[in-house]
Amino acid sequence: MASSASPETSKPKIITGPGGYVLQDVPHLSDYIPDLLVYSNPLQDNPAYSVVKQYFVHVDDTVPQKIVVHKDGPRGVHFRRAGPRQKVYFHSDDVHACIVTCGGLCPGLNTVIREIVCGLYHMYGVKKVLGIDGGYRGFYAKNTVNLNPKVVNDIHKRGGTILGTSRGGHDTAKIVDSIQDRGINQVYIIGGDGTQRGASVIFEEVRRRGLKVSVVGIPKTIDNDVPVIDKSFGFDTAVEEAQRAINAAHVEAQSFENGIGLVKLMGRYSGFIAMHATLASRDVDCCLIPESPFYLEGPGGLFEYIERRLKENGHMVLVIAEGAGQELLAESSTQKDASGNKLLQDVALWVSQRIKDHFSKERKMTINLKYIDPTYMIRAIPSNASDNVYCTLLAQSAVHGAMAGYTGYTSGLVNGRQTYIPFYRITEKQNHVVITDRMWARLLSSTNQPSFLHPKDIIEDKVDEEPASPLLDNGNCGPN
Amino acid sequence: MASSASPETSKPKIITGPGGYVLQDVPHLSDYIPDLLVYSNPLQDNPAYSVVKQYFVHVDDTVPQKIVVHKDGPRGVHFRRAGPRQKVYFHSDDVHACIVTCGGLCPGLNTVIREIVCGLYHMYGVKKVLGIDGGYRGFYAKNTVNLNPKVVNDIHKRGGTILGTSRGGHDTAKIVDSIQDRGINQVYIIGGDGTQRGASVIFEEVRRRGLKVSVVGIPKTIDNDVPVIDKSFGFDTAVEEAQRAINAAHVEAQSFENGIGLVKLMGRYSGFIAMHATLASRDVDCCLIPESPFYLEGPGGLFEYIERRLKENGHMVLVIAEGAGQELLAESSTQKDASGNKLLQDVALWVSQRIKDHFSKERKMTINLKYIDPTYMIRAIPSNASDNVYCTLLAQSAVHGAMAGYTGYTSGLVNGRQTYIPFYRITEKQNHVVITDRMWARLLSSTNQPSFLHPKDIIEDKVDEEPASPLLDNGNCGPN
Amino acid sequence: MASSASPETSKPKIITGPGGYVLQDVPHLSDYIPDLLVYSNPLQDNPAYSVVKQYFVHVDDTVPQKIVVHKDGPRGVHFRRAGPRQKVYFHSDDVHACIVTCGGLCPGLNTVIREIVCGLYHMYGVKKVLGIDGGYRGFYAKNTVNLNPKVVNDIHKRGGTILGTSRGGHDTAKIVDSIQDRGINQVYIIGGDGTQRGASVIFEEVRRRGLKVSVVGIPKTIDNDVPVIDKSFGFDTAVEEAQRAINAAHVEAQSFENGIGLVKLMGRYSGFIAMHATLASRDVDCCLIPESPFYLEGPGGLFEYIERRLKENGHMVLVIAEGAGQELLAESSTQKDASGNKLLQDVALWVSQRIKDHFSKERKMTINLKYIDPTYMIRAIPSNASDNVYCTLLAQSAVHGAMAGYTGYTSGLVNGRQTYIPFYRITEKQNHVVITDRMWARLLSSTNQPSFLHPKDIIEDKVDEEPASPLLDNGNCGPN
Amino acid sequence: MASSASPETSKPKIITGPGGYVLQDVPHLSDYIPDLLVYSNPLQDNPAYSVVKQYFVHVDDTVPQKIVVHKDGPRGVHFRRAGPRQKVYFHSDDVHACIVTCGGLCPGLNTVIREIVCGLYHMYGVKKVLGIDGGYRGFYAKNTVNLNPKVVNDIHKRGGTILGTSRGGHDTAKIVDSIQDRGINQVYIIGGDGTQRGASVIFEEVRRRGLKVSVVGIPKTIDNDVPVIDKSFGFDTAVEEAQRAINAAHVEAQSFENGIGLVKLMGRYSGFIAMHATLASRDVDCCLIPESPFYLEGPGGLFEYIERRLKENGHMVLVIAEGAGQELLAESSTQKDASGNKLLQDVALWVSQRIKDHFSKERKMTINLKYIDPTYMIRAIPSNASDNVYCTLLAQSAVHGAMAGYTGYTSGLVNGRQTYIPFYRITEKQNHVVITDRMWARLLSSTNQPSFLHPKDIIEDKVDEEPASPLLDNGNCGPN
Repeated sequence: MASSASPETSKPKIITGPGGYVLQDVPHLSDYIPDLLVYSNPLQDNPAYSVVKQYFVHVDDTVPQKIVVHKDGPRGVHFRRAGPRQKVYFHSDDVHACIVTCGGLCPGLNTVIREIVCGLYHMYGVKKVLGIDGGYRGFYAKNTVNLNPKVVNDIHKRGGTILGTSRGGHDTAKIVDSIQDRGINQVYIIGGDGTQRGASVIFEEVRRRGLKVSVVGIPKTIDNDVPVIDKSFGFDTAVEEAQRAINAAHVEAQSFENGIGLVKLMGRYSGFIAMHATLASRDVDCCLIPESPFYLEGPGGLFEYIERRLKENGHMVLVIAEGAGQELLAESSTQKDASGNKLLQDVALWVSQRIKDHFSKERKMTINLKYIDPTYMIRAIPSNASDNVYCTLLAQSAVHGAMAGYTGYTSGLVNGRQTYIPFYRITEKQNHVVITDRMWARLLSSTNQPSFLHPKDIIEDKVDEEPASPLLDNGNCGPN
Repeated sequence: MASSASPETSKPKIITGPGGYVLQDVPHLSDYIPDLLVYSNPLQDNPAYSVVKQYFVHVDDTVPQKIVVHKDGPRGVHFRRAGPRQKVYFHSDDVHACIVTCGGLCPGLNTVIREIVCGLYHMYGVKKVLGIDGGYRGFYAKNTVNLNPKVVNDIHKRGGTILGTSRGGHDTAKIVDSIQDRGINQVYIIGGDGTQRGASVIFEEVRRRGLKVSVVGIPKTIDNDVPVIDKSFGFDTAVEEAQRAINAAHVEAQSFENGIGLVKLMGRYSGFIAMHATLASRDVDCCLIPESPFYLEGPGGLFEYIERRLKENGHMVLVIAEGAGQELLAESSTQKDASGNKLLQDVALWVSQRIKDHFSKERKMTINLKYIDPTYMIRAIPSNASDNVYCTLLAQSAVHGAMAGYTGYTSGLVNGRQTYIPFYRITEKQNHVVITDRMWARLLSSTNQPSFLHPKDIIEDKVDEEPASPLLDNGNCGPN
Repeated sequence: MASSASPETSKPKIITGPGGYVLQDVPHLSDYIPDLLVYSNPLQDNPAYSVVKQYFVHVDDTVPQKIVVHKDGPRGVHFRRAGPRQKVYFHSDDVHACIVTCGGLCPGLNTVIREIVCGLYHMYGVKKVLGIDGGYRGFYAKNTVNLNPKVVNDIHKRGGTILGTSRGGHDTAKIVDSIQDRGINQVYIIGGDGTQRGASVIFEEVRRRGLKVSVVGIPKTIDNDVPVIDKSFGFDTAVEEAQRAINAAHVEAQSFENGIGLVKLMGRYSGFIAMHATLASRDVDCCLIPESPFYLEGPGGLFEYIERRLKENGHMVLVIAEGAGQELLAESSTQKDASGNKLLQDVALWVSQRIKDHFSKERKMTINLKYIDPTYMIRAIPSNASDNVYCTLLAQSAVHGAMAGYTGYTSGLVNGRQTYIPFYRITEKQNHVVITDRMWARLLSSTNQPSFLHPKDIIEDKVDEEPASPLLDNGNCGPN
Repeated sequence: MASSASPETSKPKIITGPGGYVLQDVPHLSDYIPDLLVYSNPLQDNPAYSVVKQYFVHVDDTVPQKIVVHKDGPRGVHFRRAGPRQKVYFHSDDVHACIVTCGGLCPGLNTVIREIVCGLYHMYGVKKVLGIDGGYRGFYAKNTVNLNPKVVNDIHKRGGTILGTSRGGHDTAKIVDSIQDRGINQVYIIGGDGTQRGASVIFEEVRRRGLKVSVVGIPKTIDNDVPVIDKSFGFDTAVEEAQRAINAAHVEAQSFENGIGLVKLMGRYSGFIAMHATLASRDVDCCLIPESPFYLEGPGGLFEYIERRLKENGHMVLVIAEGAGQELLAESSTQKDASGNKLLQDVALWVSQRIKDHFSKERKMTINLKYIDPTYMIRAIPSNASDNVYCTLLAQSAVHGAMAGYTGYTSGLVNGRQTYIPFYRITEKQNHVVITDRMWARLLSSTNQPSFLHPKDIIEDKVDEEPASPLLDNGNCGPN
């Protein structure tokens, strides 16, 4: 199958146009395999699609990354629009697809699996789809399962992933050996930034070996920390479910004298869930995220703010993203080496202990702090209706791209449109809440919490972030 | 206050630029009132916002309506980006705002009310906000209520509208008299397309009288039938809640021989809720919407399809938007003039009766049809987290625009960005599901229902819709 | 297997004791089959049960029906306590059980099915359990399905019944032929009062033929209208789910001028769901049930009360059980023979039309009435945790009784204890809300609605109901 | 008001009758205050109650504690039936009631508060009801709040307690001083066993001072550990909400290799919530409660069982009540004194650490353990419909008793009937799951977990518990 191997690493495909137009295109099987056969897209004989006018995506359709523009401004970076193409590079009977899920749970995993299987089957007549069990290492260490529409029919109503998942386990050579041995030619990889990085390496190895195998990433990150895309699937569901924990924290706080409800939410490096959950709830008095450093003591610090809120209002609610204040923790843990490290690595537990100590020892105030960690209760639920529709479109876009011979891309929503994004844009950095942006200002305004910033910091920050991406002036998550 | 009245009707403000750039701008108080005083935006002294880099929206920021572009294509229509401006046209102490809600219920009404009040109060220090009771007619016929952050603090957790609402009651002269008499200078009008049309007329009268009054529309439509905007608030919540009814229909259908579950969903002229609820559920076998005509009898008709599904699967689930098949109903009701009109106007009840008759009388088959109408149970719930965040941004955008002196606009989300849209774009037509588009094709593919179209229809349709808006090739709702 | 047929109809087994003690016992296989073999209960070798002290129910354990007693009062009627017996009358390998579900849906059906299967399997090692498809007629007209713990593992999380159900279809001879032909010797029949009456007839025929077949009823009635038992499974779940509809009605009513929210709830002959849902909600202004006649016009009538509530409060919420006011409807429908009967048979729709007519025509008042019928959305949901536990105990009790050779009984909860009740007590009459009882007084007190009774009625009523069951002074539903 | 003080401590009031009948009666104001005026019960003029036949509870009505009886057995202990009496000992205008909530949160607290207020107001015309803020200490250290039907109208839809709560703070003299100073004559005390003990002491002091003050306890215990009563309010809601955590644990466990989901549930001394949540869920493989000692290592231990389940099934779910295995913890913590005590006191965290260590270090197996503690998310939610009705009846019963002059009692449900129970029966011991009873056997049978008992233990246990209460053979919680 592999005619001419291409040893070199793939280069970004960049296409430019008038008015500063730039297209960051994705690889295609024909880039390194000559003389591939092309077929008519079987969708044109599908009764559901036959009524659609201009169903196939125009070959020149692209979607801009920058959406706030000036009359005379440059047009900037664009991505290739996702969707079915007039011609496909696989005959349906020849397709042998596989799906793997990696990393932590996220609402919607099963919906994506379901829709890849059903999309391949119903849209393209593909019958051979393999589920890889237990993440990357399942390629070489575990059993596989045959997937078809009947098997996946109801799985979108269940949380988790029917394929199982794991972290790590990425031995590129073994994985590509397994792909080659099994005769797989479409690989759908669902996972976060680490997983997408792995997908990128698999793609390079596949390309190096000259295999006719499409490698497709589907970004999964409950934290919403994958860059470029509008938001990740499961995010809406997670923010919704987080409301339960915040409500409970609020009720507990209100019912006790000097009640403090502290909710830990997901967000190792990005505070999107904490920020959106806070904005949606309106019962939160302070939201701490990894992007916004904070300090506990002294004027403008957390303790001072808590004390003020307790005096004004009798109670307060804190939301802490799991990755917030790691720098504080690091400081603290070198100082207190003797104590259990385990405990200290959880910033929310650590902060709650510090708050208790501060008020009982220094301020001699009785406080009632309740700590709530709903993490697993959030990530294990099935996706809501909005995420179900999102997952469906994402999965179908991924399938259309692979059938059309594209490879080495992540399927993703950009400004409300499905696109194909080259791996290097997904893996080059993480998506973060921009704390000098309006969305965070909205949050500060809604909670009235201190900014924990010194004027000095702000100015530095401005200089520092000047050459930011066009999206940074507005965040890129949700309806903003 | 009204210095120089301008008698003529306002003209669209169009600004053009290179590459086919068009800005459909919104009116401004200074268009018809000369020499208005301007003030510094008080936000720059707000601690929450002071840390934000370039917080104020650049005067030239615009957002394109068309998002799928070609390298060499024209840039097309743009809208003014929403957000706070460096200069405002009202001194906070002078602002006297009012809020009115019109038409049917929709999840999120109370959140929008809350955030207009809190936005004015916390961001701009505005203290005088009046709630108009019971819709438009409340301007002259009912009591008003003073709104402040304390009053509205928890209302986002309740369904409905604390202001009350009603249909109709639009006496423009009386309304503007009332506005003038009370000294109101910012009018926030939350309602559907009829309401926005009313807002447009109010704006024209205000302008004619030369009043310094900003008239702002906030689009409310659970059916998502307001054009231009991405989606309306409450839509997500409605689609989510509709899942309950579909699940119940599915369970009922499965538990009886030849069980048919029939769910009526909202959508007088637009089938978005039915379509999205169907796509999210995956248990629906047929979805009927106003945009897609259907017929009952004969080959390719509904009866034939139902019978096939019952034979294949033993049961089936139908979703019918309330406005579907009105042409069938019209035919039928002239024929059967004697019977109660009431019953017949509800297409879902009528279809369910026709199905029962067909199978019992013509096919001698026993069927078990269960009819479910969850309409009020859907529209009366509080908005979910996603809609809460959306409503917050929408309300804040509306407030920023009014403070900046803009008027005669609807606040709306376009391609994921908050914008100001001139009234004429909102009221010129309704947003519809485009049944020759991919989203509907996805639905047909997922349900396997017949298209109810003849090849002839399709070709005519193509010709008919040629000059459509750039969005029509892709729908403009949700993540597509 | 059938040695000596007993032609006569079975007589009630009554055992009396000191202090006015009466035991209404249930039939036993040994009543009509001599010389049955007995076996040790295999539970005594079950590790889970081996640790239990006095696990087996004492042969003399009984449960009183009357629970409010006087120091010197008679002890009254008792029922045999359910539970495992030391000796069983079936060898596990010989058991061939079947399960059938009849009538409308009710939350918990699948849990009962699951727990009969798992109870037989895990407690007694019974492997042969047959599911009869689609109600009684499934015995002779449809396929059956083999049930085992694996098949039923997750079904308690789904609404409806995996066996399917139907009304009617009771051909006793054919059913008992089928039982005999298939070699079934334990029949578990889940259904309402009609179904239990059918079970009683099947038992008599089985007995007449002298078959060693235990016939066991499990009462299923979402309306809670089965007599003797405390409450039926699914009732709790139904009352809980009804809150959604009442909340929606309340929000709709509050949001419109003269808003009336009207919720129709289940209850053809018994208003328990309506009464409990009203008591739980506190937002209901009037609850109409079959047991309490009402009238519309004149002093003390519904129209007058509605008008008063609208004047006092601006809105109101009505709950109507489906069987309420049938006498009004009957009157009205003879008067208006020409109109569609269908419509009129639904009292809630009829009342809502009468209210609309009254206020628009007679009172010239604009009202906004919203009609909500959540029936199918309530009955199709899975049972809640409380009902799950209840169903488990009910199913296990049924199984213990059949294994112990009892037959011709319904498993039921009496004063919080599982008992075996002879069929004739279950089928002799329906359970009703006693409107001269304290529970209904509580409701009247909580809604402030008129009693719709004339003093004359009350006195007559008292005389009429004098010889009532001991439970009538206190209702027999829920925690009273 | 206090005429003749009675210095001695009150004695139990025991009344006996034929057949072994025993009534454990409650104190009455007339026991220690002579010549009290009596009044007609104002309920007889209440339109809602006037239609009720024999509305007033007969003076001789009692409810047996023992419900499983033999033909010739003794009748045993009875309690006085709750409900309104023909004569009351307070004139409505003279009543000055107060309500206090103590201890941890429990769903339904606000409903009980609401129904005491509304019951006093609507049934008896009592206008003066005071809310004591923040638990017992609120009597002397905090502000109070006036309660009326308007203030409490919607509070049953919110979790927590509007009065605030606290632990401890019981200074009897100060409390009774405060009662006397404020002229309070009905004290409603909502709380767990500690609180009821406090109420008992308050009653004794009130009696000693000869005050005409009814002291009424309402048992609040989410753990269901109050003896005598059927179950406590909020318990149903808690078991329902616990299902979410168990479902999440199950999904997490299923999605990872050797996945273990561990859920900590409430239950310091009694495992009812854990047991019922396990029985309701069916996804739990092992449930550990305080009443059932267990061990980790060796044959029959937890580690062995976990390993077996992982091998058989790939994953498992554990539920641990917070008070389980305290004896293990005690052992362990004396051995490992150096480590943080805080961590060790939480048995679920400790067990999860031990499991991790065992499998990683001793068995060299990779396991994926997820720990979920939903405690605050469970206790802070509003009560469900079933608990709302229960709370209503409980509150009304409490009110009827106080009006009738009873004092020194706890209102409680016994065998499905509202009764008045003397304090000493409530405080003498805690309610426990009886692990040699059938309910626990059902659980063992459903989970297949080891009993962790040696045959020796069982025999000892039997001897040990022989003279147990009549209820012990059957548990006394829920429908058993």
